[in-house]
Amino acid sequence: MKNLKIGIIGAGPSGLAMLRAFEAEEKKGNPIPEIKCYEKQDNWGGMWNYTWRTGVGKYGEPIHGSMYKYLWSNGPKECLEFADYTFSDHFEQTISSYPPREVLFDYIQGRIRQSNARKYIQFNTVARWVDYIEGKKQFRVVFDNLVENTTFEEYFDYLVVGTGHFSTPNMPYFKGIDNFSGSIMHAHDFRGADQFTGKDILLVGSSYSAEDIGVQCYKHGTNSVTISYRTNPIDCKWPDGIKEVPLVTHFDGDTAYFKDGTSKRFDAVIFCTGYQHKFPFLPDNLRLKTKNCLYPDGIYKGVVYNDNTQLIYLGMQDQYYTFNMFDAQAWFARDYMMGRIAVPEKSLREEDIAKWMEGEANCGTSCDHVDFQTEYIRDLMAPTDYPDFNLDKVAEMFKSWLLDKEENILTYRDKIYTSVMDNTKAEKHHTPWMKELDDSLERYLEEIPADEKELSKVNYY
Amino acid sequence: MKNLKIGIIGAGPSGLAMLRAFEAEEKKGNPIPEIKCYEKQDNWGGMWNYTWRTGVGKYGEPIHGSMYKYLWSNGPKECLEFADYTFSDHFEQTISSYPPREVLFDYIQGRIRQSNARKYIQFNTVARWVDYIEGKKQFRVVFDNLVENTTFEEYFDYLVVGTGHFSTPNMPYFKGIDNFSGSIMHAHDFRGADQFTGKDILLVGSSYSAEDIGVQCYKHGTNSVTISYRTNPIDCKWPDGIKEVPLVTHFDGDTAYFKDGTSKRFDAVIFCTGYQHKFPFLPDNLRLKTKNCLYPDGIYKGVVYNDNTQLIYLGMQDQYYTFNMFDAQAWFARDYMMGRIAVPEKSLREEDIAKWMEGEANCGTSCDHVDFQTEYIRDLMAPTDYPDFNLDKVAEMFKSWLLDKEENILTYRDKIYTSVMDNTKAEKHHTPWMKELDDSLERYLEEIPADEKELSKVNYY
Repeated sequence: MKNLKIGIIGAGPSGLAMLRAFEAEEKKGNPIPEIKCYEKQDNWGGMWNYTWRTGVGKYGEPIHGSMYKYLWSNGPKECLEFADYTFSDHFEQTISSYPPREVLFDYIQGRIRQSNARKYIQFNTVARWVDYIEGKKQFRVVFDNLVENTTFEEYFDYLVVGTGHFSTPNMPYFKGIDNFSGSIMHAHDFRGADQFTGKDILLVGSSYSAEDIGVQCYKHGTNSVTISYRTNPIDCKWPDGIKEVPLVTHFDGDTAYFKDGTSKRFDAVIFCTGYQHKFPFLPDNLRLKTKNCLYPDGIYKGVVYNDNTQLIYLGMQDQYYTFNMFDAQAWFARDYMMGRIAVPEKSLREEDIAKWMEGEANCGTSCDHVDFQTEYIRDLMAPTDYPDFNLDKVAEMFKSWLLDKEENILTYRDKIYTSVMDNTKAEKHHTPWMKELDDSLERYLEEIPADEKELSKVNYY
Repeated sequence: MKNLKIGIIGAGPSGLAMLRAFEAEEKKGNPIPEIKCYEKQDNWGGMWNYTWRTGVGKYGEPIHGSMYKYLWSNGPKECLEFADYTFSDHFEQTISSYPPREVLFDYIQGRIRQSNARKYIQFNTVARWVDYIEGKKQFRVVFDNLVENTTFEEYFDYLVVGTGHFSTPNMPYFKGIDNFSGSIMHAHDFRGADQFTGKDILLVGSSYSAEDIGVQCYKHGTNSVTISYRTNPIDCKWPDGIKEVPLVTHFDGDTAYFKDGTSKRFDAVIFCTGYQHKFPFLPDNLRLKTKNCLYPDGIYKGVVYNDNTQLIYLGMQDQYYTFNMFDAQAWFARDYMMGRIAVPEKSLREEDIAKWMEGEANCGTSCDHVDFQTEYIRDLMAPTDYPDFNLDKVAEMFKSWLLDKEENILTYRDKIYTSVMDNTKAEKHHTPWMKELDDSLERYLEEIPADEKELSKVNYY
């Protein structure tokens, strides 16, 4: 164990959870393996590390982040709270249930800053290529130091992949889109609603991106938002100014035509058509190949790659639970790599995966999905010492959140919830979300007065 | 020689020149090595293969193309003509000296379609990682088949890198740009002027991209174009509506501030700040590390990598000459790999490179640069059987083109030149460039009448 070498790719919420899991062990006075973590970006936080850039970054690598200005949590913070570091621990004041991005990023950093995690991370360093060396039973990983424009290799006994799956856009082609003359982008490249003020925009897709970008644009003064769905509408009670239509059939110039025979001219099209799981640095026999779902095939307990059990994936599931799910996975992975949790032989692992996949297939509603992921996390946590918390109550909060959104998509962020970690009841925010145009940490925490001139621009309901 | 294996990465103008060079040899009845070519895109033509997409492509790879709608050649076609396949051979009619993109793409394809080149190319396949295997004296190259999501490896005696260097944006940071609320893009992601109609736009940079995007936007009805230069202005006689200012110091909201103390509000910023030479698939000891220049350090005759002479780079120079320079390089590389051209030992190669680099350093004017690249091509062509052509006359045309642009940036594309390959004098185009809004092949060749409604939108001078 002493000489076990572990490589972690990515220092976002998953990679940081992995580092935190080892740190917790070390703090108990136990020996831990040799750990190295590599992060493509120049800071930790993964998706929460906002950038103004789109396309490729300073060093020509595809941009990781899909965050935009004015992004506020779209689920209650009480559902994603760390069991070992609460919001009260961090902010020492009660806050609302739906903080903006900067506030959540601050929270993530708070926990990890208390540790020595940063010393394990090499930033601006991208994994280029992985070979599994049969003779050594190790992975050779080639890394690229983007700042120096140099490459180097490392050997690891276990490789932990925490590179996320909301970074590589899935962008379908529609006939005529090539001649659309307005701006065309994927949600991944959306950086804020401002440039769409007064415009008529089309969002293609019906998941979180479409819902949230649509509402943000409405809030910040877009003239009209049209959301085009493939199978089912989001089906909220939309305000005037947002409407849903069936799928685009084609474009002719700047006009989009829809399956129901209607058409409309647009200034911009934003593809909210999801993301691909993409691992360009892995040979295909180590690649997780899956669509976005709650239980991807090929990883035992959602973590251990079934065809090579020295390879670990974190956070590859579709997510109701986020930060605390990554923790549960990281604690499980740590105990597995350290030899405390044994995994059964391959065919039994396959059976277990199949059983869970069948469970997902049998889910009918969003509430079923919440229950499914709740059970998954309960199963993961059982053999570890990750601090226990009331998962049933979190599941209840998720279900209540689903209803809140259905009831009013513009006000659900004004609701408050109670922490299952320390029973802190959130505080109603000083400003209703629809009236709050400043998403800075300062404004959120210190109650800087709102800018009345800015406010006058809002489509306030 | 019979078993020599050659891998070519990229099927753009450089890779196609390499295939064409081998084909020319084969047509003479001579044996040629085993050749395989891999192309990331779904078609050949490299930069000339236009896509509406930006950011990453269908399979999540960074988009190669930087082409936009309404892109017309910015140099006389007589300067880039193939010596073995003239414009007259292809079009069988005289055309103007400055054709639009689609017409040039058609020309490139015309030559290569006469060969069996396509059978050597595997499309939608990206080079992931290259190792030089000392024991075998070969390259192991791992490729990724994007459609199948599978990887495979190949071994080559020579590796030819023709992946271009106008694909990976160089995008500097300016203070405050993160809060600019309009659209921000690099020239690489510019797909046409239409979305800027009536807008005030800022172009940062002073090379071809800034010049051409500025003029295109002016032509298509942008309200104002401001070009911000770092060192020297482009210094054309700009029409009202385009002006040059010194470098941006910072942004505050949507206002840019310049070094001369002036400032202006903008709707959009387009970074025309150049490109990086980027080879993510190569270990750093095989990577060409250079800025954009006429004679990059480290490649003998601009082609043979000095630290490993089994590695060939094509088209890595800054370019006055394009297609016929790639040909000269490909013919040289072919004869070198086939053992007909010997290269001296390393220190002598270094001396030769240093001599050429000094030559470039001694150039003072654009005309000097033209002469320098002319001599480079003459040197390359001498030992090969690439059809000889009058390089001095091409150099003269380049110099004349430089003057034309200086004289009038809006009308230089209406000038005509005479082919040095077959003495064909170009024809004045049916429509002055500033009045021509349709850049299709059909309109160009068949004289479809111009759309008068479209014409009324033009900022005609």
